[in-house]
Amino acid sequence: MTYCVAIKVDSGLVFASDSRTNAGIDHVSTYSKMHTFVWPGDRSFVLLSAGNLATTQLVVKRLRSDSEAGIAPSLCTAPDLDAAVNYVGMVSTEIQRSQVERDLQSTSFEATFIFGGQIGNGPTGIFMVYPQGNYIHESAEHPFLQIGETKYGKPILDRVIRHDIPLELAGRCALVSLNSTIRSNLTVGPPIELLLYNTGTLNEGRRLSLSESDPFYHQVNEAWAEGLRQALNSLPPFEWEQEIKMAQFVQNSSPQQQY
Amino acid sequence: MTYCVAIKVDSGLVFASDSRTNAGIDHVSTYSKMHTFVWPGDRSFVLLSAGNLATTQLVVKRLRSDSEAGIAPSLCTAPDLDAAVNYVGMVSTEIQRSQVERDLQSTSFEATFIFGGQIGNGPTGIFMVYPQGNYIHESAEHPFLQIGETKYGKPILDRVIRHDIPLELAGRCALVSLNSTIRSNLTVGPPIELLLYNTGTLNEGRRLSLSESDPFYHQVNEAWAEGLRQALNSLPPFEWEQEIKMAQFVQNSSPQQQY
Repeated sequence: MTYCVAIKVDSGLVFASDSRTNAGIDHVSTYSKMHTFVWPGDRSFVLLSAGNLATTQLVVKRLRSDSEAGIAPSLCTAPDLDAAVNYVGMVSTEIQRSQVERDLQSTSFEATFIFGGQIGNGPTGIFMVYPQGNYIHESAEHPFLQIGETKYGKPILDRVIRHDIPLELAGRCALVSLNSTIRSNLTVGPPIELLLYNTGTLNEGRRLSLSESDPFYHQVNEAWAEGLRQALNSLPPFEWEQEIKMAQFVQNSSPQQQY
Repeated sequence: MTYCVAIKVDSGLVFASDSRTNAGIDHVSTYSKMHTFVWPGDRSFVLLSAGNLATTQLVVKRLRSDSEAGIAPSLCTAPDLDAAVNYVGMVSTEIQRSQVERDLQSTSFEATFIFGGQIGNGPTGIFMVYPQGNYIHESAEHPFLQIGETKYGKPILDRVIRHDIPLELAGRCALVSLNSTIRSNLTVGPPIELLLYNTGTLNEGRRLSLSESDPFYHQVNEAWAEGLRQALNSLPPFEWEQEIKMAQFVQNSSPQQQY
């Protein structure tokens, strides 16, 4: 399985992905699911992938070779983000179809992608590309997209992510979302890759690869665990706990009050 | 769908359930999924149910009627918890079989249960009863069980629940787990029912039914949201944020340092 998330805030984009792939429990490997396509000063894209690894590897190769050949459509020639994501969806379905055609069994070659970035002084955007090649974008009310094992890490995103929060806060929230999923599900694993893109920079962004032994990742983990403990301890007591406390207080203080 | 969780800590048991049932999106109703069977001073059981509503209603009726008839096996005659949960599994499969036999289509009549409680001065215990009638109990390393839509609410349990935490803290953690699930998934809905049972009391325990408008539920929600905000804000900054801060500090302080 896989877990990837992308967030769009006013000041930029966040992309985060785990690195575990498995074909059955005996074939567990580590592969990056984050792919960048950057023409500095002109355009910058990030692709996160989930699903059949052979399909996603072929899609990434095809996106690169089309751009190197300078053909249209390709990532380097797309006039806007919509044209770019439509081209990604087309490549994905073409490659899935070519795999299905040579298959003797009914294997699933499906892959799902998150694609996002910016072209020139156009707007930033993130999209989820379904296995069928169609796609949706984020919205102002729901400015994040997830693929793969999405449920464990969704509550924190639902509570925190709004389009007007700082980019770095959204990045830390993505880290926590990934970390919670890794703790609760064996098929999602480190290293976590995190990329923060500042709107208008048209560059590679800031990219981190955080293994379990990484000191920063460890600090985030510890601080989050401590923060959750404090959050739980700050919850209001049940009614009877207050009554018990009050009774103990009266009991303890009454001998003195008698004087 | 449904979400129920039970937790066993040294000082007692926590049971929590949502109340939404749906058969398609047009048939959404509110039903309690928490059922208690108490013989004060002798034995106390709680049953949480997920799955086909007709099945779970029949199972609950049968558990009550068997006990009222005083027959063996039944909840009121079971010599220990293992015998009690084995009987629950037997009733569940019998009722599913009777439904399947009269069915003309291949409908799923499956139901899953969490069952727990205490008999006399025996140990407390919680069990998950599968649709097949077999069951597992909690363990010291994993002292909680979930049924239904379990993923959204699992990370907080994974982080917090240990057998030696106070009963009320475990209860608040269950509330947060339910609340997170309700926020992220439409098929899980309020009121939340929560039951805290103190080991050795052999009574009905303390039971709350928390609707969305309940002041305590609202306080828990608000305090949790604020706690999460603080937890996120307490996370360590990225390296470049420290550098930027340092650069700003040097820039701001250098004019004075020149004097």
